[in-house]
Amino acid sequence: MTKQFTLAELASHIGAELRGEGSTQISGVNTLKDAGRSEVSFLANASYRSQLAQTQAAAVIVNPDAAADVSGAALVLANPYLGFAQVTQLFDNRPPVSPGIHPTAVIADTAEIGSNVSIGAHAVVGEHCQIGDDCEIGPGTVINAHCVLGQGCLLNANVTLCHDVVLGERVRIQSGAVIGGDGFGFAPDNGRWHRIAQLGGVRIGSDVEIGVNTCIDRGALGDTVIGNNVILDNLIQIGHNVQIGDGTAMAACTGVAGSTTIGKHCTIAGAVGIAGHLQLCDGVHIAAMALISKSITEPGAYASGTAQMPMQEWRRSATRFRQLDSIAKRLQQLEKGQKGKS
Amino acid sequence: MTKQFTLAELASHIGAELRGEGSTQISGVNTLKDAGRSEVSFLANASYRSQLAQTQAAAVIVNPDAAADVSGAALVLANPYLGFAQVTQLFDNRPPVSPGIHPTAVIADTAEIGSNVSIGAHAVVGEHCQIGDDCEIGPGTVINAHCVLGQGCLLNANVTLCHDVVLGERVRIQSGAVIGGDGFGFAPDNGRWHRIAQLGGVRIGSDVEIGVNTCIDRGALGDTVIGNNVILDNLIQIGHNVQIGDGTAMAACTGVAGSTTIGKHCTIAGAVGIAGHLQLCDGVHIAAMALISKSITEPGAYASGTAQMPMQEWRRSATRFRQLDSIAKRLQQLEKGQKGKS
Amino acid sequence: MTKQFTLAELASHIGAELRGEGSTQISGVNTLKDAGRSEVSFLANASYRSQLAQTQAAAVIVNPDAAADVSGAALVLANPYLGFAQVTQLFDNRPPVSPGIHPTAVIADTAEIGSNVSIGAHAVVGEHCQIGDDCEIGPGTVINAHCVLGQGCLLNANVTLCHDVVLGERVRIQSGAVIGGDGFGFAPDNGRWHRIAQLGGVRIGSDVEIGVNTCIDRGALGDTVIGNNVILDNLIQIGHNVQIGDGTAMAACTGVAGSTTIGKHCTIAGAVGIAGHLQLCDGVHIAAMALISKSITEPGAYASGTAQMPMQEWRRSATRFRQLDSIAKRLQQLEKGQKGKS
Repeated sequence: MTKQFTLAELASHIGAELRGEGSTQISGVNTLKDAGRSEVSFLANASYRSQLAQTQAAAVIVNPDAAADVSGAALVLANPYLGFAQVTQLFDNRPPVSPGIHPTAVIADTAEIGSNVSIGAHAVVGEHCQIGDDCEIGPGTVINAHCVLGQGCLLNANVTLCHDVVLGERVRIQSGAVIGGDGFGFAPDNGRWHRIAQLGGVRIGSDVEIGVNTCIDRGALGDTVIGNNVILDNLIQIGHNVQIGDGTAMAACTGVAGSTTIGKHCTIAGAVGIAGHLQLCDGVHIAAMALISKSITEPGAYASGTAQMPMQEWRRSATRFRQLDSIAKRLQQLEKGQKGKS
Repeated sequence: MTKQFTLAELASHIGAELRGEGSTQISGVNTLKDAGRSEVSFLANASYRSQLAQTQAAAVIVNPDAAADVSGAALVLANPYLGFAQVTQLFDNRPPVSPGIHPTAVIADTAEIGSNVSIGAHAVVGEHCQIGDDCEIGPGTVINAHCVLGQGCLLNANVTLCHDVVLGERVRIQSGAVIGGDGFGFAPDNGRWHRIAQLGGVRIGSDVEIGVNTCIDRGALGDTVIGNNVILDNLIQIGHNVQIGDGTAMAACTGVAGSTTIGKHCTIAGAVGIAGHLQLCDGVHIAAMALISKSITEPGAYASGTAQMPMQEWRRSATRFRQLDSIAKRLQQLEKGQKGKS
Repeated sequence: MTKQFTLAELASHIGAELRGEGSTQISGVNTLKDAGRSEVSFLANASYRSQLAQTQAAAVIVNPDAAADVSGAALVLANPYLGFAQVTQLFDNRPPVSPGIHPTAVIADTAEIGSNVSIGAHAVVGEHCQIGDDCEIGPGTVINAHCVLGQGCLLNANVTLCHDVVLGERVRIQSGAVIGGDGFGFAPDNGRWHRIAQLGGVRIGSDVEIGVNTCIDRGALGDTVIGNNVILDNLIQIGHNVQIGDGTAMAACTGVAGSTTIGKHCTIAGAVGIAGHLQLCDGVHIAAMALISKSITEPGAYASGTAQMPMQEWRRSATRFRQLDSIAKRLQQLEKGQKGKS
């Protein structure tokens, strides 16, 4: 828990130029405001630059421009936020897991388990699964038949992989996430719904992050596909046969309906709704709680909805919203009258 | 995994008229565009009709009208989408489960287990539960005391049924769903919340589908009731004492607050919010991300919100939305002035 | 299941004045409309006052003002809804759990387990956990290393606590909830996302309620903090380093992004979205499905969005919303013209 590194070690780890005493011992990382004398801090957002003067941090990770304002030691590199991220990984305090397979875990005879794998209490690994080297599978996690995990995947406690889910390398899945549930496909007939068996699977790239209680449904025909380095927050719904391009980020509570394709390097904010069978091109940014119901062919930022208001004022605007078509037509009437006169 | 059926068998299974060679072997089902020479395809949406000419499918499921455009074999019936659904069930590739109770499952002495039941590793079945014939209970699933499952129910891995939940026949529940959690009921007093114990249960009809991580709360007084053939997608919230009529469908991320009644054969799109204590009549259709805060007494389609816009344009509209009442009043002023002149 | 209390016992339990025969046996609690002759009912909402005349309830919990309308027995106190809540707790029919640790539970040697604790089948308690007296831990629940549960906590089945989560006393957590998942923090560099290890934990006060499948992420630097008597419904997302003040209530499907602080005694309705790094003062009330993207410094009610409309009418309003800036400018034009003439 009490890891220690020298400043020189930190500088070397993040590839920064060290200005100051390399032998200084560092025991943690913190914000400029809260850092103590044995902690390193960082300046990633220029609006906090004034805090450089007061910080008690033993050293600050900064870019070359801001380095001049640092009175103490500095770790100087082009992208201080990246440097900060790399330092947090050094100080990661996640308790170590025991290597090996817990005696209460249930592993199918036909499953292939790589080397240096940890499988927690009451976990289940189904028939014909392949678990790559260095994977960690948490307690209570269920991996159904025919799943493949690449090297170095981490599934926390109580995750579920349904059958025929394929993960690349270093995929991290938080607790409660379910990958490969049945897509929502039903044929109506005479007032009744008839289930369409979901025959596809889920394919997930490498370096993907999947948040708590997030759902990724299996494909109906063909697979649901998540690209490399996609990062998904908590409580996200990904419908069947959705495709998400490399490097796209999606914040919590967002839902993507079936068969929609999202491009690369998009950022989708929280609680966004994206309808089915759409195409979103690369480089699209969607604002929080927007509804996207048409395809997007131009990179850029999109939004819908209205902004917060005190309730009484909102009620008046909302009432007028219902009259908007009449308002617009009456305005046209007046304009015509005006024109007639001029 | 490599199931095979003859065209004649498929035609008989779905009740279609076979046009072509009945002995042709079919090994799968696919879209018109992607189907290979040993796969069957279908035309359910007229906009894909032009693909009939190019498809390589061994046969196409079509309605009588479109059958003329099929150059190869055809399976002709009135509702081709239903025929497709029935064919997917034949080709379902879900790995078979072992019948019987896994030795690590914990089954209460007072539970009654029907015949041909499969209970997975580390599943738990509580006191006085009744599990009907042909049920499948996945690994890690917990069924608390006094639950009843009708014949042929499927609970995937890591499902939770709280106590006193009653399922009809052939109910399918996806992983992570929780049925019978406490409703959200609290009495405020002097700035503190006091819990109202939730004394009711949950009653679910037959042929109901419940998606991944969906929640259905138990009733406060009396039960929460889900009708027959209701289909619920993932991450849905059903509050206490909600009632949902037969054949209603609800897409992912939708929430229904307590004591609301939804009629039969409604379709509720994704991420809809429905307030509490409302009545929605039969045949209501709600658009994605709509907020329903008043009862609906007329069948038909309803919506709220605004449509997607590029961010810069949206900002202007959103700013004007705040001024809407003033805009409407100033328009009225102008109209009065106009009238005075005419 | 068939608990019985006398009216005198109920009156004493809730601190009410008893008007009527104290020896009457009461076997349950129900609404005025549905109560049978051996059940007690309550009047908490004046709009149901007319039902007092018809109810068959053995007695009614009322405030002094409404007591005059009760023909039979009455339990009179200032806050009848609180009295009702307290009576529901007496009649709570949740099946009792066996005390002690189920033989299939896996408890780390270094965990400290208090007295009168119940731990269900296949539950897991990690290294160095401290479980207070009278706690109940449901089947399949996983508590990772270094967690602390105060006296009398209830974790239902299939809950997950990640490492370093601290609960106060009498915290109740519904199934599927995950506390302490990694916050969503990544540093972008050259088109790739680099994970920021989440070094903080989660601290939760006493008398807190956490709903089904709700997520509370651990802090990045420092902890995520939930105050005393906060009540959270189902499917809620609480981002890293959020702070929620005492007595605040939040309905289902709401999401709060990282580093936002919410004051005391706020009520947040369902499916609300609250952006990151905001401050909401005490006593704020947010309407269902509102988007809050700016800090709020004044107590009161806030909303965003538009109200439900029949689809055809909505389409017209939504189209005009896109023209709002033009409409406003044209109105200004006309007003100028008008002025010019007057």
